[in-house]
Amino acid sequence: MSENRGVVYIESGRVEVQSIPFPKLVSPKGRKLGHGVILKVVSTNICGSDQHMVRGRTTASAGLVLGHEITGEVIELGSDVETLKLGDLVSVPFNVACGRCRTCKEQNTGVCLTVNPARAGGAYGYVDMGDWIGGQAEYVMVPYADFNLLAFPDKAHAMEKIRDLTCLSDILPTGFHGAVTAGVGPGATVYIAGAGPVGLAAAASARLLGAAVVIVGDVNPLRLDHARKVGFETVDLSKDASLVDQIEKILGVREVDCAVDCVGFEARGHGHEGSQVEAPATVLNSLMEVTRAAGRIGIPGLYVTDDPGGVDDAARRGSLSVRLGLGWAKSHSFHTGQTPVMKYNRQLMQAILWDRINIAEIVGVQVIALDEAPNGYASFDAGAPKKYVIDPHKMIRRAA
Amino acid sequence: MSENRGVVYIESGRVEVQSIPFPKLVSPKGRKLGHGVILKVVSTNICGSDQHMVRGRTTASAGLVLGHEITGEVIELGSDVETLKLGDLVSVPFNVACGRCRTCKEQNTGVCLTVNPARAGGAYGYVDMGDWIGGQAEYVMVPYADFNLLAFPDKAHAMEKIRDLTCLSDILPTGFHGAVTAGVGPGATVYIAGAGPVGLAAAASARLLGAAVVIVGDVNPLRLDHARKVGFETVDLSKDASLVDQIEKILGVREVDCAVDCVGFEARGHGHEGSQVEAPATVLNSLMEVTRAAGRIGIPGLYVTDDPGGVDDAARRGSLSVRLGLGWAKSHSFHTGQTPVMKYNRQLMQAILWDRINIAEIVGVQVIALDEAPNGYASFDAGAPKKYVIDPHKMIRRAA
Amino acid sequence: MSENRGVVYIESGRVEVQSIPFPKLVSPKGRKLGHGVILKVVSTNICGSDQHMVRGRTTASAGLVLGHEITGEVIELGSDVETLKLGDLVSVPFNVACGRCRTCKEQNTGVCLTVNPARAGGAYGYVDMGDWIGGQAEYVMVPYADFNLLAFPDKAHAMEKIRDLTCLSDILPTGFHGAVTAGVGPGATVYIAGAGPVGLAAAASARLLGAAVVIVGDVNPLRLDHARKVGFETVDLSKDASLVDQIEKILGVREVDCAVDCVGFEARGHGHEGSQVEAPATVLNSLMEVTRAAGRIGIPGLYVTDDPGGVDDAARRGSLSVRLGLGWAKSHSFHTGQTPVMKYNRQLMQAILWDRINIAEIVGVQVIALDEAPNGYASFDAGAPKKYVIDPHKMIRRAA
Amino acid sequence: MSENRGVVYIESGRVEVQSIPFPKLVSPKGRKLGHGVILKVVSTNICGSDQHMVRGRTTASAGLVLGHEITGEVIELGSDVETLKLGDLVSVPFNVACGRCRTCKEQNTGVCLTVNPARAGGAYGYVDMGDWIGGQAEYVMVPYADFNLLAFPDKAHAMEKIRDLTCLSDILPTGFHGAVTAGVGPGATVYIAGAGPVGLAAAASARLLGAAVVIVGDVNPLRLDHARKVGFETVDLSKDASLVDQIEKILGVREVDCAVDCVGFEARGHGHEGSQVEAPATVLNSLMEVTRAAGRIGIPGLYVTDDPGGVDDAARRGSLSVRLGLGWAKSHSFHTGQTPVMKYNRQLMQAILWDRINIAEIVGVQVIALDEAPNGYASFDAGAPKKYVIDPHKMIRRAA
Repeated sequence: MSENRGVVYIESGRVEVQSIPFPKLVSPKGRKLGHGVILKVVSTNICGSDQHMVRGRTTASAGLVLGHEITGEVIELGSDVETLKLGDLVSVPFNVACGRCRTCKEQNTGVCLTVNPARAGGAYGYVDMGDWIGGQAEYVMVPYADFNLLAFPDKAHAMEKIRDLTCLSDILPTGFHGAVTAGVGPGATVYIAGAGPVGLAAAASARLLGAAVVIVGDVNPLRLDHARKVGFETVDLSKDASLVDQIEKILGVREVDCAVDCVGFEARGHGHEGSQVEAPATVLNSLMEVTRAAGRIGIPGLYVTDDPGGVDDAARRGSLSVRLGLGWAKSHSFHTGQTPVMKYNRQLMQAILWDRINIAEIVGVQVIALDEAPNGYASFDAGAPKKYVIDPHKMIRRAA
Repeated sequence: MSENRGVVYIESGRVEVQSIPFPKLVSPKGRKLGHGVILKVVSTNICGSDQHMVRGRTTASAGLVLGHEITGEVIELGSDVETLKLGDLVSVPFNVACGRCRTCKEQNTGVCLTVNPARAGGAYGYVDMGDWIGGQAEYVMVPYADFNLLAFPDKAHAMEKIRDLTCLSDILPTGFHGAVTAGVGPGATVYIAGAGPVGLAAAASARLLGAAVVIVGDVNPLRLDHARKVGFETVDLSKDASLVDQIEKILGVREVDCAVDCVGFEARGHGHEGSQVEAPATVLNSLMEVTRAAGRIGIPGLYVTDDPGGVDDAARRGSLSVRLGLGWAKSHSFHTGQTPVMKYNRQLMQAILWDRINIAEIVGVQVIALDEAPNGYASFDAGAPKKYVIDPHKMIRRAA
Repeated sequence: MSENRGVVYIESGRVEVQSIPFPKLVSPKGRKLGHGVILKVVSTNICGSDQHMVRGRTTASAGLVLGHEITGEVIELGSDVETLKLGDLVSVPFNVACGRCRTCKEQNTGVCLTVNPARAGGAYGYVDMGDWIGGQAEYVMVPYADFNLLAFPDKAHAMEKIRDLTCLSDILPTGFHGAVTAGVGPGATVYIAGAGPVGLAAAASARLLGAAVVIVGDVNPLRLDHARKVGFETVDLSKDASLVDQIEKILGVREVDCAVDCVGFEARGHGHEGSQVEAPATVLNSLMEVTRAAGRIGIPGLYVTDDPGGVDDAARRGSLSVRLGLGWAKSHSFHTGQTPVMKYNRQLMQAILWDRINIAEIVGVQVIALDEAPNGYASFDAGAPKKYVIDPHKMIRRAA
Repeated sequence: MSENRGVVYIESGRVEVQSIPFPKLVSPKGRKLGHGVILKVVSTNICGSDQHMVRGRTTASAGLVLGHEITGEVIELGSDVETLKLGDLVSVPFNVACGRCRTCKEQNTGVCLTVNPARAGGAYGYVDMGDWIGGQAEYVMVPYADFNLLAFPDKAHAMEKIRDLTCLSDILPTGFHGAVTAGVGPGATVYIAGAGPVGLAAAASARLLGAAVVIVGDVNPLRLDHARKVGFETVDLSKDASLVDQIEKILGVREVDCAVDCVGFEARGHGHEGSQVEAPATVLNSLMEVTRAAGRIGIPGLYVTDDPGGVDDAARRGSLSVRLGLGWAKSHSFHTGQTPVMKYNRQLMQAILWDRINIAEIVGVQVIALDEAPNGYASFDAGAPKKYVIDPHKMIRRAA
């Protein structure tokens, strides 16, 4: 049990599975952590935000062990851990959070003040997020384990649902946060920008929240096909018909109640030509156009402070040309930031366990071996309508 | 068009269909109402709270025209009406509300300060609610029409869904209000006391709000059968197994996240013997037992200020022996009152029109002729698992 | 009583007091309004947003009668008016709102859907806001009077407080909305960008809401002096010390809990040189820097969809170069739009009547005659730390 | 440092200062607590809820060390403590809370699920609250210290304000919670039942929250005098004039916006005769009468599940004859339970440190020696308008 292997970032466009150290109950700064646990990783997903690093759109260094979407089994307990026990199957929120600072106490675990000396907010295996080692690996360490971990009540039942439950570490709460901050509730008409996994999770969340109708927009035809297959209305933004016109065709009116940006800073333009090129403010500006007066816009899609690959100087320092006057005229509000997963994961677990949301099917979960991770990154980057879930110990494939 | 017929309360246990005056654009005090409209009634439902009157549990006088659940077609417009037009098909919230006082402006239309000189809150065809003439009739007048009425966007589509849309005037928003005030959201475990139409509407609402599991309790076996048929878990309170034990069997734990009292002051006790007798505080006390710490208890079920038929002196002046110490120890909150229908009806209409909630099937809508109303009252009182919808102009039966 | 005089916009930099028609109970489209009233104007204030028009930064046409901050006495009642009576002293929210559409019912009267055919939201005497005649005049018409008007409970008491109560039509609720949407509450540390009347009203509101400390920033030394005199901490943005450094000097930490933008699109840069030039995104970008993680940013300051006088093409169509990546990293939310005055004016009236807020002193109310209005515009534009209140019938000066 | 003395409950009506063991980093069950700290107690207050025990109205056993309102200096750190350091001056919320269970994560630390095997919610030195040793002593142990403790940012400044800051452990947050749950905000008219320390803290909180006017009612003339002296309106419930009539005299209307019950289950009746006898539902029933429609009623006053000294059988098992029908007719909501202190203490600390609330003066803080505690209990029980603060190491008296 003293060996470990994980997915390592090498350089722009390249990741490798390598031997890495077996985790210890020690912080990135070297402090011993009585509150930590070691997990045997049961599932760990590739995330769209990992792609930003792998595409060279961040300042991530070679050697970084990737992976912040982790589900695992507790195999070692720190001395201070009280509520967990060996063998527990647990979901790990992607945010590393201490549970002791002001923002954690206020449920804003996405911007914990203590786990990252550089800025608010920590995560596993991510650039600028506090140097916590990633979990696309066989084993991983989780600090503040009583606080951070969500234990599944029945292990056997959980293993039956593991393809859905693996979505609790990030993707499902992130989509849900987008929908909640956009004000989605029963009877709402909702537009989701982006048909990737976060967009689909937002769409599934909107449905769970009681939305009357959910429309997903993208420029990728494969993803739009998949979105339709799992029951959502779609808008094809590579067409020249405007977003508003396409929405009117579906709803009979030119505005939606709520809108969610699941694209972020690597957005492309709209229309036949526009969709060929990156245009980072396109999504936000189009959401102001399409959202009703007094509506809210949820922005779970990532916007960065520094983007080495930005289209121009402004984009490179995280500035966008936003048509704020339009949003102001409509009394919009805008809700940004990393999702505080813990605010939502218990209730979403319940929804999964009681068969209220088939999230694995909706996001297109595809289980792969650890050694297939590099291929998973490549296929996902090419736009496959899939959510790749790494199964490092073959526990999922054996359970199926 | 100058004739009208309606359901009239005669005495305890007796209602009759009689000729009544054709409505005028005039208030109960005789003031001319430029803001009113006359509706041709398309559907009008019998409500459990009508039964309180008909059973002689209120101070209603003979001659009162009943009916506060109304859907209709606009056939006459007051001079001040601006947003409605002749022929519009509209849902009437059961609360009469002015839209001009403080509580209306704050969305608490259930306690409008101006439409009832006696106390806050008005309704059509109900004792102590301001003397507005009831709508279990062919025609009815609605004041403050631009404010009160919800027009359906597409009349033909609405007539196809009329059995569901007729539930928007009271029953569905009332159940929904109970669920919302109880804090129901995605993943919640919910207990609903009462399997009558309000209980079922609360259950349907809880599901729409994303609840993981919804449990309905009652002492009436027919109603429990129906609740199971439309997909809810049930608890039989006429059995000697305690509520908490029965809930544990379903959930594996002895508490729910949220609880809703859809029974009100005419509650019976629990258990084989208890369920034979009226015991007005039973439901509330059991909900405190079954609701988790920090949970909320929604109370759409009616509690009255004066109950001539109460079991004892205390009950007769609306006092109940509530085990408040238990609720306090669990940090419960309690949410009472008439539902402000307008807060919810637009979004619930959208949910119906987009096929997100099959409320007619769930509450057991049964369409009857106006002349069948007295039988409807009797069957409903006998515990039939039905929601009787009067169709005074045969418009529903013709549309079907 | 058939004569009237009002302040009329002539051209960029010029307003005049002219004879204008006596108001009628008729809409801009010519419809007779049973729900309207005529007011004798008791006080009417010059607003910073009037200056945008007078400076030629909008598309306002010559001949527009200005004025949307109105307090008056009811002298004529439409047939449908029920709750008001002749002689009532009333505050007029600057938003014209119908009280009958979806957004009005949801308390978002700033974006009423029916009073302005061009877009959501109406106002008196303002470009693109529905052609409702302005109230910097002797008399004015108010539609939907029962809904829109706030009657003062005791006329004599109200006349004693008229210099404070005149702030209820816009400036105080607008500052309050900024503070509320920024999440200000007891114990908060607050930064207000802008020491003009809206900024001071936001500061006063923050104090009323229980803020621990309120810091106001501006580049105008007279306004900063005034802000200090009425009890607020200040930051001088014409200095080269950064905003964050100046805040640290006051608080000991480099961030505040809550921030409010009371400047809007005509912002200037910071620092000795920066403050000489217009730089429309400066305020927003600096607020993201200075606001704590998970904080909220209130934006009552006006941003427009079209600005003929913008510094560049982007600014001319209402686009700003916003450093959204920074806000996203801190999980900020942003809250824009016209203030829905009615949501706040009743409670703020109570605070004034019970001596909890001395808003007239804080914003520097200066009462002037109608004929002095052009001078008032000029002095205000020059940066005088004053709020000019026009007293067209000498009722305020006589009462004093 | 291995000695300790504390206030010990002996029998009904009697407490004594005795030698007690020096605290250890060990739980009541004997588990070693790496997350705990030992505090040198700087101040520790006598609470009204201690009186319930000392009056024999609970099942507290002889030997219980009293005290749950604690401020102290950190003198020993467990191995897992990360954010605190030796010498820190800290406020201890009276709730013992783990920060790791569902209710703690949702900010409901008053009903922590893990620190008390008997029921939800723990406290120091209190019957049925988990056997955590009380802090009316020289030294005390606090578990989950990083989570529970609020460290003051500047020790010298804090010692200057210690008479105010000592109110952060319970009394001020408890009054504040009452006001917040009652919906108090700017401009509200507020009625507070009870002029003891919690009532005065609720009144002070209502003022901080911006209330227009705060009225305090009691039957004790000394307490009413004190309430007037510190600036509140008062109602004397030992008079025969009704509460509603007395409120109308102050406000001109017969209802308030918000009401708070700061009395709890040992309430007396109203009126000359009524006020001589205990009548546990009096306060609640009178609050329903006096609160406006759609208003909220905050209930920080303690109601118990078992009261050995109750006036009748119902009272002895925590049942009250509540006129729920009245509250229901007015759409009231009711908010009960132990205050989750941590939700509020940081912001209230800021309000104290920036001179926004003079809570010590308002509640009548009187500093006493540890040996004077028995006298403090007796005087407080006799109705003295004081809040007794024990100063076990003379640190407060030396600082003054």
